Amino acid sequence: MTVSLARVRTRLTDTNQEVMAFRFEVIKKDNLSQARLGRIETDHGSFTTPAFLPVGTQGSIKSLTPEELVEIGVEAILGNTYHLYLRPGHETIERLGGLHTFIHWERPILTDSGGFQIFSLGSLRKISEEGVTFQSHLDGSSHFLSPEKVMEIQRSLGSDIAMVLDECVPYPSPYEYVKVSMERTSRWAKRSLEVRRETDPALFAIVQGGVHRDLREKSVHKLVEMGFHGYAIGGLSVGEPKSMMSDVLKWTTPLLPENKPRYLMGVGTPEDILNAVMLGIDFFDCVLPTRNARNGTLFTSSGKISIKQAQYAEDGKPVDETCTCYTCRHYSRAYLRHLYLSKEILSSRLNTIHNLFYYINLLVKIKGAIQEGRLLDFYKSHTSPHGLEIEFPAHFQSD
Amino acid sequence: MTVSLARVRTRLTDTNQEVMAFRFEVIKKDNLSQARLGRIETDHGSFTTPAFLPVGTQGSIKSLTPEELVEIGVEAILGNTYHLYLRPGHETIERLGGLHTFIHWERPILTDSGGFQIFSLGSLRKISEEGVTFQSHLDGSSHFLSPEKVMEIQRSLGSDIAMVLDECVPYPSPYEYVKVSMERTSRWAKRSLEVRRETDPALFAIVQGGVHRDLREKSVHKLVEMGFHGYAIGGLSVGEPKSMMSDVLKWTTPLLPENKPRYLMGVGTPEDILNAVMLGIDFFDCVLPTRNARNGTLFTSSGKISIKQAQYAEDGKPVDETCTCYTCRHYSRAYLRHLYLSKEILSSRLNTIHNLFYYINLLVKIKGAIQEGRLLDFYKSHTSPHGLEIEFPAHFQSD
Repeated sequence: MTVSLARVRTRLTDTNQEVMAFRFEVIKKDNLSQARLGRIETDHGSFTTPAFLPVGTQGSIKSLTPEELVEIGVEAILGNTYHLYLRPGHETIERLGGLHTFIHWERPILTDSGGFQIFSLGSLRKISEEGVTFQSHLDGSSHFLSPEKVMEIQRSLGSDIAMVLDECVPYPSPYEYVKVSMERTSRWAKRSLEVRRETDPALFAIVQGGVHRDLREKSVHKLVEMGFHGYAIGGLSVGEPKSMMSDVLKWTTPLLPENKPRYLMGVGTPEDILNAVMLGIDFFDCVLPTRNARNGTLFTSSGKISIKQAQYAEDGKPVDETCTCYTCRHYSRAYLRHLYLSKEILSSRLNTIHNLFYYINLLVKIKGAIQEGRLLDFYKSHTSPHGLEIEFPAHFQSD
Repeated sequence: MTVSLARVRTRLTDTNQEVMAFRFEVIKKDNLSQARLGRIETDHGSFTTPAFLPVGTQGSIKSLTPEELVEIGVEAILGNTYHLYLRPGHETIERLGGLHTFIHWERPILTDSGGFQIFSLGSLRKISEEGVTFQSHLDGSSHFLSPEKVMEIQRSLGSDIAMVLDECVPYPSPYEYVKVSMERTSRWAKRSLEVRRETDPALFAIVQGGVHRDLREKSVHKLVEMGFHGYAIGGLSVGEPKSMMSDVLKWTTPLLPENKPRYLMGVGTPEDILNAVMLGIDFFDCVLPTRNARNGTLFTSSGKISIKQAQYAEDGKPVDETCTCYTCRHYSRAYLRHLYLSKEILSSRLNTIHNLFYYINLLVKIKGAIQEGRLLDFYKSHTSPHGLEIEFPAHFQSD
């Protein structure tokens, strides 16, 4: 509770009109891969890339305070537009001073467009050129969201990085549908850009096109031509085989402008992240570390463990003896197992602190490796039997 | 997370045998009531009285870390022998270094005897002179606990203050049963004392006798004759009318030795606490502030509020504008309402921090009032329309 959160002043124009301060800088490019070290500056401070953004679905990173996130090393978080729009409502949040003030988080916030959640509702939603009609999962009430409305919501939330409304198609889907959907997502991106105001959050487009190279390429070309502050790769981690993610990234990232950040949405495992960094991705969000934590699955330097297992009943060691997180500094596996089995709230907290620290620390190590020109060695060392067990992409095989 | 916990070294004898270091000192007695300001010293540091001990049922004060408790001002906590005996087991905790190490709390711990929980099981338990047989609420397994066994369990846990096994009779109960039960509880107390070792926790006896003056008096006389480190008043807050608690305290505390601490078990509301302090009680434990917090009921300087109410939907004010707790410093009622309705884990945390701070701060104010000889004024000022609304006992009416 004692960590202070740095507040960054909004830049003002001559007429005292606030303008959005967004800048991306590539600090260093890796020689042996597409990886880059970079920095994203926003009205609420900067974060270094490659970065991992924990997911604050309903206005909190489940179980943690902002001070704890800062202590873990989190520099930016994601908020879910869909959830906040439904409850407590973006207008309420705006009247209360915006999302940063509402949730007491003074660093960068990226908000998604709600598209992923809406399209996950299945039969509860209906799509048209104009937008998407859906029923709330909370009370069944009917809602309509268009690209313009989603911009308005994210404006009210006061996020630093906004996403365009997109359709995330499931895997597998017929080629024809993926094509129609991708083209509509591109038209929606254009509409989003057209209503964007100078004071609005930075706006990222979302590349779609499923697992089809021609559609992904077309999507990139259309979006890059329009010109966004950054580009996300969507529609991955939706059930497709692991290798396809690498394929889509290999087709896509080389076509994206070098001077704009690249965001891989909803990904992923530590292996996925390391792999995608080498394929040119700058940042990530995923519920995996926080959700796993609440289910008692913990990441360690020697693989995942399930803390509920009987083997930990009298294990006085920390989760990971190489870890310096708050949980590993003070608590035994036996205590964490006890808290989990006893359904104590502290279980979710201590596990979440550990897993998020694991992710953030992985990114710290990746950034160090890029800085020092040893990312490929880092990558290889993490393919050891006790490492990340990533599938080494053919074009990185150096020997 | 950054608050450090002071570790207090155990006193050693000449032969390096650890002995229990327990001492109670009355620092100041109030002139107009039975209230006393005091200090209890244990192997794990001291705490000032009147004190409130939050309840760590299963090895955690629900939702909070020890560092947060320290920041709130908590000086000592209670652990439930019944729950820890069943899960993870006292022998497991002993092998892991004792309860303090297991839960990462380095300040005083009082453990109850498990009596209250066992006797709350109703038909699942059977009492005899030897002890009590009961079935676990977790898995239905059968267990037998005697006064001696309960001493052994608390020895394994390594608590600083242990309680004798007692029977807590419900209200109302037939006079004859309360008498039989009280007498057995006294015999159990004697057996507990007989097996107590020099290195064991300080041992408190529990005064029983329901709402019957003669039985309470007999109970006190028997227990005081045996000589314990301190005396608890049990069997209150079990459904009896409010005024009876004052009556029992008025009959009981004057008969207890002045130089021994007095503990009112399982009590209570802020009003109960202030009232009992004036009737000579030194410390309390109760689940009320923590349980209420999780249910969205918050204590404020102008009465209790239910944070789920619609009136707080856009209320940007803190829970209590006069409060300086972490929650009130950083979050609005609207956000706390949102977290509660969204069933976010952070809701329980922030509410628990506030309610415990309210309780600890009440005790701070009470201690200050005793120190400065203005407890009666404090008491009266809290009977204002917006105060604690306590029933002012007749013998304190000064005008």
